[in-house]
Amino acid sequence: MSKEITSRKEDYAQWYNDLVIKGGLADYSAVRGCMVIKPYGFALWEEMRDELDRMFKETGHENAYFPLFIPKSFLSREAAHVEGFAKECAVVTHYRLKNDPDGGGIIVDPEAKLEEELIVRPTSETIIWNTYKTWIQSYRDLPLLINQWANVVRWEMRTRLFLRTTEFLWQEGHTAHANAEEAITEARLMLDVYTDFVENFMALPVIRGVKTPSERFAGAIDTYCIEAMMQDGKALQAGTSHFLGQNFAKAFDVKFSDKQNKLDYVWATSWGVSTRLVGALVMAHSDDEGLILPPKIAPIQVVIVPIYKGDERKELLDARGKELASALKKAGIRVKFDNNDNNRPGWKFAEYEKKGVPVRLALGLRDLDNHTVEVARRDTKDKMSLPAEGLIERIVLLLQEIQESMYRKALLFRDDHITKADDWDEFVRLLDEKGGFISAHWDGTPETEEAIKDKLKATIRCIPLNNPPENGKCILTGRPSKERVLFARAY
Amino acid sequence: MSKEITSRKEDYAQWYNDLVIKGGLADYSAVRGCMVIKPYGFALWEEMRDELDRMFKETGHENAYFPLFIPKSFLSREAAHVEGFAKECAVVTHYRLKNDPDGGGIIVDPEAKLEEELIVRPTSETIIWNTYKTWIQSYRDLPLLINQWANVVRWEMRTRLFLRTTEFLWQEGHTAHANAEEAITEARLMLDVYTDFVENFMALPVIRGVKTPSERFAGAIDTYCIEAMMQDGKALQAGTSHFLGQNFAKAFDVKFSDKQNKLDYVWATSWGVSTRLVGALVMAHSDDEGLILPPKIAPIQVVIVPIYKGDERKELLDARGKELASALKKAGIRVKFDNNDNNRPGWKFAEYEKKGVPVRLALGLRDLDNHTVEVARRDTKDKMSLPAEGLIERIVLLLQEIQESMYRKALLFRDDHITKADDWDEFVRLLDEKGGFISAHWDGTPETEEAIKDKLKATIRCIPLNNPPENGKCILTGRPSKERVLFARAY
Repeated sequence: MSKEITSRKEDYAQWYNDLVIKGGLADYSAVRGCMVIKPYGFALWEEMRDELDRMFKETGHENAYFPLFIPKSFLSREAAHVEGFAKECAVVTHYRLKNDPDGGGIIVDPEAKLEEELIVRPTSETIIWNTYKTWIQSYRDLPLLINQWANVVRWEMRTRLFLRTTEFLWQEGHTAHANAEEAITEARLMLDVYTDFVENFMALPVIRGVKTPSERFAGAIDTYCIEAMMQDGKALQAGTSHFLGQNFAKAFDVKFSDKQNKLDYVWATSWGVSTRLVGALVMAHSDDEGLILPPKIAPIQVVIVPIYKGDERKELLDARGKELASALKKAGIRVKFDNNDNNRPGWKFAEYEKKGVPVRLALGLRDLDNHTVEVARRDTKDKMSLPAEGLIERIVLLLQEIQESMYRKALLFRDDHITKADDWDEFVRLLDEKGGFISAHWDGTPETEEAIKDKLKATIRCIPLNNPPENGKCILTGRPSKERVLFARAY
Repeated sequence: MSKEITSRKEDYAQWYNDLVIKGGLADYSAVRGCMVIKPYGFALWEEMRDELDRMFKETGHENAYFPLFIPKSFLSREAAHVEGFAKECAVVTHYRLKNDPDGGGIIVDPEAKLEEELIVRPTSETIIWNTYKTWIQSYRDLPLLINQWANVVRWEMRTRLFLRTTEFLWQEGHTAHANAEEAITEARLMLDVYTDFVENFMALPVIRGVKTPSERFAGAIDTYCIEAMMQDGKALQAGTSHFLGQNFAKAFDVKFSDKQNKLDYVWATSWGVSTRLVGALVMAHSDDEGLILPPKIAPIQVVIVPIYKGDERKELLDARGKELASALKKAGIRVKFDNNDNNRPGWKFAEYEKKGVPVRLALGLRDLDNHTVEVARRDTKDKMSLPAEGLIERIVLLLQEIQESMYRKALLFRDDHITKADDWDEFVRLLDEKGGFISAHWDGTPETEEAIKDKLKATIRCIPLNNPPENGKCILTGRPSKERVLFARAY
């Protein structure tokens, strides 16, 4: 039906782009690496954002807003941080344009050069900890639990819609604590919140783990992460939560006096998820006909399409459709009644399939006679005729069933894509032929990690939390290892 | 009580800054002209944003997101627009930093110079109309009703917290229509929405009008505005809505085919309000003790303070306080129960007065005996003892009464500050001694407008909608005039 969408088999990358663009989520823009998030895509992001925001507030966090610009010198304060983030970023050097005296249009005014260049924030630890210095004096000011919803810019060389864009939208939590234990507890709590959101709202199972030192956030002591599995067998990091120790407090001289009036540096965490999650959602669930969105975050949960037969009882069909829409809305369901005369039902069916609307109701003349409605599930494509009576309750249950069924399907796929490998050839073969997570022994050195990455483009996605101890030999070097880690090729 | 807040009489500008900073709304930042919006200030902005967003969606608009950066050449496309916006803006010229080979820290990598500079958006007409070109082909694609919540940057020389900052948060609506009438209707509809919001939620009466040609948005055919009056007699532009004609469609070559298959340029509007509204709110309602927030948008509508007397029946006080908080919450009221032991009741009273919480409930031992609660209004400072029975209903009504009373007070003040002037000396005297809006005749020329601005720093705030015709003589030149306009000094 949707000839315009490339199939997964034919070209997975193109399939993804087709879904994003033709499903109405996003578009390329005139600015290299930046995308336009279209209304339907933004409505999806709003559903995700609002649910996360609710979870953050429920766990005691407040929102605030810090400047877009970071003075260049701030980035250098934390040694590891500058290495990780000062490389590829947008640099503001001037604050004025003027008419070219030689008639060449508008040019940068050379006299409006900034004394110190400003960096468009790639992440906000530095500007925030510079502010916390004035907000934190005593243990009474702690914990400080703040989140920011913002746009950030990282000058990426290779970009992909949602998955890696120069500018993206995200939230970044930045918390301050009186001791290490409390900060670690916070970092883990936010990993729990992310897990809850991604699994129960996005219907996407994740593996919770900790990053190896070389994959850590620049400036962190420990980086916790959740890793998801896409349909092509590649992993995708869906969220990270960092225990930052006292690194940023030391860099920005943020001390507090404890109950004994002793001064100490403050302990920190930061954590974030971004519009990248939209990319994960698309890649994990969709099929060759289009998007498949989980009901809990779908902008439209139910679409109602009237099947007109010329003008025959058209007003009655419209009235019945509107009545149904209003009853569903009253039950808390996001519903659209599409009685637009310009498009035929077949076109509409394809359009809402492409957009991943979980449930489609079709209402024809025979349904008026029989007091029925045709109900179609987007995920399984099952169709059934249901009696009008008790329909709302059935739809509510159906949406729940779809949500759970999508999760189960993704979980089965994911579990089927965690494979143990105990020798190098097997490891290589699995990566190339099956993909997914490969559970293998590693000698714990960054050199081995780097060598495997160079040879196979596979990275250690994480060391799972509560990983069982197991003696073994490193997949590459044969040196002794105490536990398996998860390798994968990743987005 | 609040010695830390400068009084209005002493220094109005300092009073405003004290309120913003000590009321917990915002803070200065390390970046010139940029502010940090603190959690309490951001919670207030969230209440405002969410209500506006609801209104936009109710009137058929959808949110989307466009890039932060605008290619320099885009700004030049619309002649008037470039004059208005290309002057003071943040210019990104490079995309990489590197370690200084001479050991001077990190420096801008001269090899990473952009071919075309990028401007951090001061407003998004250009990038959005460049996108609309690909979205609009036929009358079926119209109207296109899109809004964006975003940060924008204008390099202001003199900044003030909320009122004028280099970076600020706002929403910008950008709509496309098939004819002029529809676009004008849209621009006027959004002026209605802004009026509804500012008057009924911010409790701030506004004058609706149209700007003179020299005060128009750069690129607009007509700029509609709402103007509010502050306590010091200065006006504040609270929102604008622009009819852009076909200017941007022509600049970006956006045409559509109508029902007769004839090609024409698309008609446009844009409209916006910003975090500047927070400044208006503070200036319009507050007093020398602190903020006074209208209940409908106050982040905390009711605060409950228990008055402990040592440990005497402390648990009972706490239980009663929590019970009350939970009953208020159930009634849909945003409530805080502050039983923090570190601070004394007197400190808390002053703190919540400073923060402008509309209603304070105090609960002491005698209240336990008498089944009463002490209720204090922030706006009038009235206190009363109310029976616990029926309290929730009384509070709900009280919040409504405060909302209306704040509006009435602001309306009386505003109406008292519209004064007619019919000769120049009177005009000057009124501006200097009374302030407010001066309703006077103007000869309709930009030269006269400019001359008055130069002499007195007063501008024409607007020509009110439905302005009654009246023959008269220009206040400066004595030339004939057909209607009065409103002059004022303004923020």
